[in-house]
Order: sequence, then C-alpha cells, then structure tokens
Amino acid sequence: MSSEFGHLLKVSVFGQSHGRAIGVNIDGLPAGETIDLDELNAFLDRRKTGKNALSTARKESDIPVFLSGLENGVTCGFPLCAVIENSDQHSSDYSELLDKPRPSHADYTARVKWGGHADMRGGGHFSGRLTAPLCVAGGIAKQILARRGVYVGAHLAAVGTEDDAPFPLRPTKELFDSIAAKPFPVLDDRAGERMQALILDARQNLDSVGGIIECAAIGLPAGLGDPMFDGIENRLAAALFGIPAVKGVEFGLGFGSSRLRGSENNDPFTVEKGQIVTETNRAGGILGGITTGMPVTLRAAIKPTPSISRPQRTVSLSAGEPAGLVVKGRHDPCIAHRAVPVVEAVTATVLLDLLLEGNHGTF
Amino acid sequence: MSSEFGHLLKVSVFGQSHGRAIGVNIDGLPAGETIDLDELNAFLDRRKTGKNALSTARKESDIPVFLSGLENGVTCGFPLCAVIENSDQHSSDYSELLDKPRPSHADYTARVKWGGHADMRGGGHFSGRLTAPLCVAGGIAKQILARRGVYVGAHLAAVGTEDDAPFPLRPTKELFDSIAAKPFPVLDDRAGERMQALILDARQNLDSVGGIIECAAIGLPAGLGDPMFDGIENRLAAALFGIPAVKGVEFGLGFGSSRLRGSENNDPFTVEKGQIVTETNRAGGILGGITTGMPVTLRAAIKPTPSISRPQRTVSLSAGEPAGLVVKGRHDPCIAHRAVPVVEAVTATVLLDLLLEGNHGTF
Amino acid sequence: MSSEFGHLLKVSVFGQSHGRAIGVNIDGLPAGETIDLDELNAFLDRRKTGKNALSTARKESDIPVFLSGLENGVTCGFPLCAVIENSDQHSSDYSELLDKPRPSHADYTARVKWGGHADMRGGGHFSGRLTAPLCVAGGIAKQILARRGVYVGAHLAAVGTEDDAPFPLRPTKELFDSIAAKPFPVLDDRAGERMQALILDARQNLDSVGGIIECAAIGLPAGLGDPMFDGIENRLAAALFGIPAVKGVEFGLGFGSSRLRGSENNDPFTVEKGQIVTETNRAGGILGGITTGMPVTLRAAIKPTPSISRPQRTVSLSAGEPAGLVVKGRHDPCIAHRAVPVVEAVTATVLLDLLLEGNHGTF
Amino acid sequence: MSSEFGHLLKVSVFGQSHGRAIGVNIDGLPAGETIDLDELNAFLDRRKTGKNALSTARKESDIPVFLSGLENGVTCGFPLCAVIENSDQHSSDYSELLDKPRPSHADYTARVKWGGHADMRGGGHFSGRLTAPLCVAGGIAKQILARRGVYVGAHLAAVGTEDDAPFPLRPTKELFDSIAAKPFPVLDDRAGERMQALILDARQNLDSVGGIIECAAIGLPAGLGDPMFDGIENRLAAALFGIPAVKGVEFGLGFGSSRLRGSENNDPFTVEKGQIVTETNRAGGILGGITTGMPVTLRAAIKPTPSISRPQRTVSLSAGEPAGLVVKGRHDPCIAHRAVPVVEAVTATVLLDLLLEGNHGTF
Repeated sequence: MSSEFGHLLKVSVFGQSHGRAIGVNIDGLPAGETIDLDELNAFLDRRKTGKNALSTARKESDIPVFLSGLENGVTCGFPLCAVIENSDQHSSDYSELLDKPRPSHADYTARVKWGGHADMRGGGHFSGRLTAPLCVAGGIAKQILARRGVYVGAHLAAVGTEDDAPFPLRPTKELFDSIAAKPFPVLDDRAGERMQALILDARQNLDSVGGIIECAAIGLPAGLGDPMFDGIENRLAAALFGIPAVKGVEFGLGFGSSRLRGSENNDPFTVEKGQIVTETNRAGGILGGITTGMPVTLRAAIKPTPSISRPQRTVSLSAGEPAGLVVKGRHDPCIAHRAVPVVEAVTATVLLDLLLEGNHGTF
Repeated sequence: MSSEFGHLLKVSVFGQSHGRAIGVNIDGLPAGETIDLDELNAFLDRRKTGKNALSTARKESDIPVFLSGLENGVTCGFPLCAVIENSDQHSSDYSELLDKPRPSHADYTARVKWGGHADMRGGGHFSGRLTAPLCVAGGIAKQILARRGVYVGAHLAAVGTEDDAPFPLRPTKELFDSIAAKPFPVLDDRAGERMQALILDARQNLDSVGGIIECAAIGLPAGLGDPMFDGIENRLAAALFGIPAVKGVEFGLGFGSSRLRGSENNDPFTVEKGQIVTETNRAGGILGGITTGMPVTLRAAIKPTPSISRPQRTVSLSAGEPAGLVVKGRHDPCIAHRAVPVVEAVTATVLLDLLLEGNHGTF
Repeated sequence: MSSEFGHLLKVSVFGQSHGRAIGVNIDGLPAGETIDLDELNAFLDRRKTGKNALSTARKESDIPVFLSGLENGVTCGFPLCAVIENSDQHSSDYSELLDKPRPSHADYTARVKWGGHADMRGGGHFSGRLTAPLCVAGGIAKQILARRGVYVGAHLAAVGTEDDAPFPLRPTKELFDSIAAKPFPVLDDRAGERMQALILDARQNLDSVGGIIECAAIGLPAGLGDPMFDGIENRLAAALFGIPAVKGVEFGLGFGSSRLRGSENNDPFTVEKGQIVTETNRAGGILGGITTGMPVTLRAAIKPTPSISRPQRTVSLSAGEPAGLVVKGRHDPCIAHRAVPVVEAVTATVLLDLLLEGNHGTF
Repeated sequence: MSSEFGHLLKVSVFGQSHGRAIGVNIDGLPAGETIDLDELNAFLDRRKTGKNALSTARKESDIPVFLSGLENGVTCGFPLCAVIENSDQHSSDYSELLDKPRPSHADYTARVKWGGHADMRGGGHFSGRLTAPLCVAGGIAKQILARRGVYVGAHLAAVGTEDDAPFPLRPTKELFDSIAAKPFPVLDDRAGERMQALILDARQNLDSVGGIIECAAIGLPAGLGDPMFDGIENRLAAALFGIPAVKGVEFGLGFGSSRLRGSENNDPFTVEKGQIVTETNRAGGILGGITTGMPVTLRAAIKPTPSISRPQRTVSLSAGEPAGLVVKGRHDPCIAHRAVPVVEAVTATVLLDLLLEGNHGTF
C-alpha cells in the first residue's frame, strides 16, 4: 500500500517536503457531491503553521489546485487529484542531516532503506507537511458525510501532562463546530491555557512536547464494519498510524479498559426514544469491529517533535562513529494541536469508505 | 478483507465457536519449511483453557489437522489449510442471548448487521476460540522466523491495576523461552501472583478483569516497512485489532510518549560493535514506519471479558424494551493471559509477511 | 493474491490433487441465503469425470462438507469453508515426472519456483481438480444471483476446429437450463456430435484437443463496474485466467471486433419496452468497463490437455540433458466440456462480488 | 481498485480528457533509478497524435511535469506523481452527446452510473488520452527493466483483416528498437503499407477499423508469478483490459491453442547452452501462471474506434426515444497503432511489479 489507504475510496498521498509539490489522489469519491471550497480551505487553515508562537515560522499558503475529479465545484465520479505547491523552503538547513541522522526521526531508516537516494530535505515524504493533502481528502470526506448526518470532530485531549476534559457521552455537531472555531482546539479553555504554557515552556527550553487527540464521529448507522480484520478499529488504526508521530491508537476507554473490571467496563443496553442505545460508551461505539450506533470515539497518541534544538547524541554515518548534533531549521515545539484536524481528516475518510461499501451483510 | 490479513502472506480465519470446525487458510508460505508439529502444539497449548481456575472449564483438544500445504511436515508452497474440530459445546446456554444481547459483546451488532441469520452460538465467529487458528498460523510463522534469527515473545504486562516489569532494552530468545515455559506468562513472578489473585477475586465476585500484553520482536533487519500507510505500525495494528477484545495498540512508549518532552523521548544513536543502534528504544524499533534494527516493541490493551455472571441491564429485542440478563455458560474471568501467545502469533505472522516482501526499496 | 480473488467477496482455493483434501474459503457471502444443496451438487456433477469415454477414469464423489458459514442450509454471514476429501489417487503414476517435467504443464515452473518442495503429485495445486472448490463457490453464487434475477450460463462454443452455434442476442434462463441438462453442453447437438467425435479421435490417437467456452450473464443492472482497472472485464479476466488451461479471454466479439470496421462493430442504441437497449451486442454488454444492461458475454480459450500419452521430448532435470517421456496415468483427452460449469462458476462469483459493492457511483 | 493497478508497485491514473490535467501517481518505484527523460519523451512520442493522416488532428505536447518522486532525474523512493496539462480542447464539440450517447462508447454507461455528473467532455476519464500517463509509468518501468536485462516490445499484429508477421521465437532488444523507430510499428513493412491503406480507406468512408497488438518481454527469469489467481496471465490481463478499447487478451497461441491438438500445442523441453528452454513457445512463456524463462508473449484485441462520422442510430435520453446522431469532433480512424506503446507500457509496469516481489517461493 505504502502511501495509500482505503478500499472503495482510495487515498494516495504524494510529495516531499521540499520537492515541487505535494498532493493527493482520491479514487472512488461518489459523483455529484458539491464541495464548498471556502469551507474546505477553512478546514485546511486549522492545521496551518505560522499563526502564533506555538508553531514553526514557515509560511505556507497551501491552497490546493484541483487537477481532476472536481468540475465547477462538484465531484464528477473520476479520481480527484489535488496539488499544493511547495514554497518558502530552506533546504540548506538540512544538509548536515544527510550524514548525522536526527534521533527519533526517519532520517536513519530512510537511509538504510533507500541508501542516499531518498529526498529527505525537510523530512521528505515523512514530513508533517504531507498531512496537508490528507486534510484535503478529509475535508472533502467531512462535507460528504455531513450531508448524510455524519459528523466528525476532535479536540486536543492532552499536551504532555496536561489534560483537557473528555468528550461528553453524546457530542454534537455544535460542539465540534465550537472547538473548530477556537484558536486552540480544546473543550476546557483553562486546560488549554495550561497546555499552551507547557508548549511555550518547551520551546523556551529548546525542547518539544507530545500530546493526545480525542476524535469522535456521530450519526453513523449501527452495523457498519466487519469482524476480525476488517472492522472499524482495524481500518481506522491502520490509517491513523499513517499520520506522522502517532505512536498509539485506542478506541473507547482503550488502555483504560484494561485496568477495569467487566462490571465497570460493560455498557448496559437500554431504549431511548425507541432506539437501542448504551447507557455508557466505554466501547467507543464499536463491538466486534461493528458500529453500535453510539458515537465512535478514539484517541491517538502523538510523540513529542523529535527535531529539538538542544545538542543531541547521534552518529556520523560517513565516519561510523558517535557525533554531536544541533538540529537547525524551524520546528514546532508541539505538533499535537496541529494534528487535531488531521486525525479528523483521516477518521472521516475511513468512515466514508466504510459507508460507501453499504451494508453488504444481508445484501 | 473481513477475516483475512496480509499482503504476500494471507491469513484467512474461518469458523464459528459452535459450528463444525474452525480453521485457517494460509496463502503465501514459502516452500521447504519444516514445521515441528510438537513445537507447534506446545505453542497452541499456551492459549488453551481448562488448565486452572483462571480460565473457563471448556475442554478443547484443539489439534489442528492439515488439509493442504504441509506434506510430511514440510511446507510445499501451496495454500496451507488447517482445521480444528469443534466439540464439547453447550449451545443451549446461549438461546436467551438471541433476544437479549450481552452488554459489550458483539451479539447486538451481529444482529443489526445480519438480522437473525448470524450463527452467534458461543459467540460465533467473534469467539475467542477463533484465536486458535490464528495461533496455528502464528506458530508456523514463528518457526520460519526463528530459522532466520527473528524471535517474537510476549508477556502479560498488566492485569487490571497490577503491572509486570517491562521487557529489558534487549530481550533475548532465552527470555522469551523462559516466559513461554511458565504457567503464568510474566517476567516478575511476584507480580504474576498478584495478577492471579486479582483474577481469582474477579471470578469470586462474578466479574472479570482486563489486561495488557507487551510483545517484542528481535533480530529484524533495519529498513523493513514503508512510510505512511504501509509501515510496521499500520500493518501490525490493523492485524492486532483483529484479536477479540483488543481496544488499544501502542508501539514503544506509545501513549507514554505523548506525556514526555522530546529530550526525554528521543533515542540517541550510537555505535555498538560496529552497528548503529539507539541507546534507548522508546520508539519501539520503528521510525517513520520502518524498522531501525532495534527490538520492535508493542503493547495491546485487552478489555475485561464482557460475559460476566452478574445481573446486567440489557434490552429484549423482541419486546423493544429494557430487560435484565444473567449470562450463563462458562466464561474466562480474564482472557489477557491466554491472549499472550495470540499477540505473539499475529505479530509473527505480520513480520513474516513483511520479510517475504524483501527490501524492494532499492531493488 | 495467489489462490484468491475478489474484493468484498473473497474466494480462496486450497488443496493439492493428491493431498488430504481440497476446498474453498468464501469470505463475504451475505447472510440469510438459503443454499439448495441438491441443486449445488447437481451443478458440481456437471464438471465431474468418469461419466463417459470423453473423460478420465478417475472416480470422484466430490461431495463438499461445510465446516463453517452454512448452518441448516442458510449462510450465516461468516466465512464459508467447504472441503472435499481426496480419494482414488494413483500417486505412483507421477514419480517419473519429478525428474522429467511434462511439456506445457506446470511441472517445470513449479520446480524452478519451489525447488523440489512443491507437492506436484497429480498436478498438485495446479490440477484441474482444484476447479471443484471453485464450482462450490460458483454454485452458491449462482443461487444467490438467481434469487435476484441474474442468471449465468455457458456452453461449449468449440472443440478444436468444430464450432457450436453462438448464444442468441438474448439468451434466457430456460436456454441455460436446457444446456445444463444435456450430457454434452452445446446449443447445436449435431455440432456436439462432431465435437465428441473429435475428442474420441484425439483419445484414440493418444492425443488431446482444446476448446472454447462461451458464457453469458443476464439480468444484470446497467451501471455495474468501474473505468480503467476495475471494470467488469478486468475483474472477470483476472479471475478466469485462474482456471487451469485458459489462455485467452475475450468479451463480446473480442478478437473478432479487431477485424471489423466501426460501422460494423458499433451497437446502435434503441428503446424497447421503455428500456434503453442496444440492437446488437458486439460489446458483450460492457462499455467502458461498465455494464450496459445487455447480456454480458465472454469467451475463454482452453488449450488442449498437455498430458498426452504419446512419446514426448523433455529434459531430465537431474541429468541436465534431453530425455524422452511417456506420460502415464489417466488424463482427459479434452477438458473444455468439463470446464463449462467452471467458467460459469467463476463468472457468477465475480458478478456477485460486483453486485455486493452496490452502485457507489452516486452513493 | 478503479483507476489503479499493481501490488507493490501501484499505478494510479487520474484526469479527464478536457479537464485541467491528466497524470499518474506511481507508488513503490525503487529508489536510485536514473530516468533518461529524453528516452522517456521519445517513448511518449510513439503514442502521439497529429503525426499524419492516420490520426486525429488534435495537437498534444504532452510533456510530463514531475511533482514528486524524481529528483535530478533519479527516483527517490517516494511516490512519483507526473502531470500532463490539457490544452487544445474543443469541448463544445461534445455538448450534443450529453443527451445522445455515442454507440459503443462509455457515454451511456457513465450516464447510468453517475447521472449527469460525470465530466464526459472528450470522453472524460475514459478517453484514450488517459493512456499518456500510463505511458509515463510504462516508459519509466521500461528503463528500470532494461537495466536488469528485461526488454518489452510490441508491434501492430493486425489492422482489420491485414496481418503483420508474428514475432520470431526469440525476439531481441534490437528487433524491439527497430520497430519502435519506425513511423508505423510493424515487422513487415509491406503488411504495414496494406494496413495504412486500410486505415485511410476507413477514414475516407467516415469509418474506423480495429487491430491487434502483439507484445513480448524477454530476459525474465523463470519462476516469476503464482498459481491460480495471481499468475502472470491474471495480472497482465487485469491491467491490459484497462486500456480503452481492448476487448480480448491472449497469451502465447491463445485462442489458436484451442483449435489444436496437444501434440501440436505442447512445447517440448530441451537444453540450449546449458539452459532449459522450450523448442517452441506456444505457451507464451507461461506455464501454470509462472514464467518459464522463454519470452512472455501476448496479444491484445483493439476494437475499432466507436466515434465515427457516419450517421448512427442512438437514443435521446431526455426524450426517451430513438434519435439520429452524427458525431462531430476529431477522431482517430484507428487507434491500434497508437496503442502499441501503451500495451508495452502496461506490460512493462506489471512485470516490474512482479520482479519487485522477488521470488518469495522459497524465501
């Protein structure tokens, strides 16, 4: 698969951070879907850099150009290719890294895999910049889902040791919208202030910090997904681990469930307005890989940005011996807040793919 | 995909808990691999029930019969189909559940997806029993990997609130073997005693408890895997979420990384006996989806068994209203310890699949 | 993929000709489909050997045993595994072939690919016997399709130089049934007699002869399939070339079209009973990879059985030099007539897979 | 899959004939491969229009721009996206066709599948223009293959009733080069003159004509491919039917084999310079889906261009009744000669994909 995911809806991402352009090809979008480009660009804005001291100073306009698949703002059934030009690159910042791989970055593994041929300027194809085309795909998927009453939203659940409040049992579209409108995407703004202070502190200490993103999808029908290896969790996890820096994915209570007793973790069924629902949702809306109709909830762990400005120990590949490294260039002290719309984007894309399959259970 | 995973090595699981048989079809095994059936059966024994008070009383002999692909104990290059007959079933225990879905089990979602047609006796295709054929595949993969110096081992990292010690920086084959030989698969036997006490306490309280499994693979070359959506993490996670009850997967420090600073999480490179290694391994041996050559480490969260004997709140599907339920039948108060070899099995199978692809990076 | 095909409906075939059993695992069948086992066995009978002098003397009962997925004759939504035991094998007939590969058989390529490890007794996994499990899958698919008004039928269009009449513009279920009921599956029985004479003549001359099968599917909706690489033709051809001995596949007029002018090959549209249809159907019911609603028609070329009893020139692999070979054992002088239901089976399975996807074009 | 094919090497084509651009994304190319752009453009020139009276008058410069994956002319291991701008379009020519679908074109099936949303100007995504990006992928694959001694070549085997000579038993790189250098790609130039006369005659009669392309690949190792559904034939056929207008694919003698006796069709093995080879190659270098080491040969049937200028019978979709149609615009009286490099391109891409898998038979 490499840089592609999806079954009926295939999303292929291409480009290097300092190459000519990055982009995405989306094969399998239904035809006749009007895409509001202002709304899409507003969504893309949410992952942009340069807005404040929390992020890198690199300026990116990142307006996608649609080469195919979208005519007069409407999907035409054929593969949609969207391209974002690269600009404002400082490739010279990266020359030292060809010999001295940054700790906990893909520099070293890329070198092993592709010899010196990988274009790793700016992180190459591993760069967080590649999440921009993912957001193009996800922003389109979100609009198509919304038209069918399915909404996907996320917030920054933690930065380092600081936690936001969790999503309520039944998050709403309005809640998702209100988070998306905030400059810092949290439920509890005071927690958000503590998180921001933590990020600034990391920056001042030439360091970085990780975080956790909680994402929810509402409005999904029950019965979506398949047992064992093709369930909601398998497909979402496989795609979410494609977001750079994600090191853990859990659904519902996730790792928290493993600490509980069955009587504490089970979600009792009940009837609410004629619908079968669960009183709690520790399962994250998924039983046996199949949606229950309750909100699908998940959390993704984002590691701290590996590019920090402190002196670090690495090796010189040419000399074959240990060496010191001070990473130059512009780097985010935290990427978790910028990854919030990315997690939404990937989640929305996978869910649209699942919905396109329909319920082939009983044909 | 449904009940299948893998690229060049495809593993398809079939069967229902109370059907005629369960089994696995493995397509893509290399030819000429001798499979030691005693070693395989010893591996299968590790997930068996009925050994002590910690597990269900159902007796299973679970000896696989090889219908194809294995001749005189040697793989012959063609698909290997192994079948395990079902026996000792108490299907009548499950009749009530057709109307009253067990909380946090797949009863309800199966009903929504397939109407009344799903054969959900004993949990049907969602049953933990389906992990037996997964272990057949994984036990075979482990033998093939071992012949190439790749070893996969796991231990029970937690039961409820009780934690085992973590794997050391460089676990060894001997360590894996010593855990596998124990009746309770932990590193620290005193922690193991506390865990077992916790499981027995849960049983006495008609309850269950969850756990965490840590798994490691050693001996893998650096450079295995691909960026974005086809990396080690994507592929392992997609398969591991196919194990019933897994609700979270993390690599290296995983969610722990999200709480740290970059300076605390980064793994410095160094040179050891002429090899480039990392001083620590918080990345779990994976950078950019590609192996570093350090041990690949992961943790899987297992939720507490949803089938508990306490009275629970559910709904009557026929009446469309709330109803009480007392689950009968034999159920494990904890499945995490039995899932240890299953996590090994799935991990080994995915890694063999990756190794079969070779390093097509530079062809 | 190896021995598997399909997207939402995956069909995996396993087994060797002289191994313990052959079988098929079908993942993705809709639940609640009643399978008439008598009808299924009648379908399987159509490919059986031993009925007359036209086929090999090997007796096969070939009654499939269902290990999973089918309970009380109804599909239950989970993978369906069906197994057919092997018996009446004369493996000793094949010992010489390990050193002297039969011309135009897979003996040699199997040896190159898997060394001496491939179990090639009786042709191993390449044997025409593996079409029995394909017919189990196809027989089930045919019943599910028929319930939705889609019928698949085939006839023997040619044996060697003798041609049957082609299907009419609009073949019917009744026509399909009448061919299936014949001992020799042709439209024109006099042509059938000439074909049979040709087969018997080949047998008497220790030779074999090839043939062509024409297959049609009626009742399909228009709009099924996708452009470029996922169209009806791509998917049918990919699967049909999996039938042993198929060396060519064409749709509609196929190679015949290449000899015509556009004015001779184009199918004019017209309106018939309010439906848009084509006056002719040289396109085989497919334009741009998508169904038109007219019958889908295709032809598959079957090469003559490579196992003939005449002395042939081959090589001794051990000696590395030319050698003579007289193939022993029982072999069909023609397999084309037995392959008629196999082509139906594969076609039906692919079409069911396509129908399960639904029309995701406009969602 | 839709507009994508390949396993480890994935080729995704996007674009509409009259959209902003067409292009291809190639995921899985090995790194470090130098691509000679002059050689690539020379290959692309072979499918170009406007060279003479045999083709449409539409001018296309068709120089691909590489957005990613190729840096300083060398592949860098990451997905390669190449884009070709569209220009010189006469979209107004196509307005009538929205209501009156052209016979034997995808106009009607696209309308059924995507309603009025499909961008079918100039044939949309079904246009032969989409073979340009296929040739970009194939031209790159050809260069990578050539570096490993694998060469792919093709010629126009027939136009209508006129046949070229077939490839010799062992075609050479020099033969492929000499055909590629010709303005009309045939072996026998006198046959080529008759073919061209036939094309011009079709044009003068406001008609079109079909053809057959024969393609061969030399230098492949034996043992490549897999039995049943993942063999050389399955994979090549699945991809080749993605070329617009292909209605039949055969390997070796193909349909010709079905007319022969086994003694006439079998290829005797012999030893030549210490290598095991076959004296003849009616199997097209493939036995059991696996390469023999002899040249892989195939033929693809191209139907006559459906867009002809003669009055034709169609229907008015708005009126729901029969209507006359005279197709305007510029159309090729024959596309078979232009499809020669396209068949080479698709064949080369599939073979490179197979080679990248390596021989996982014995690992």
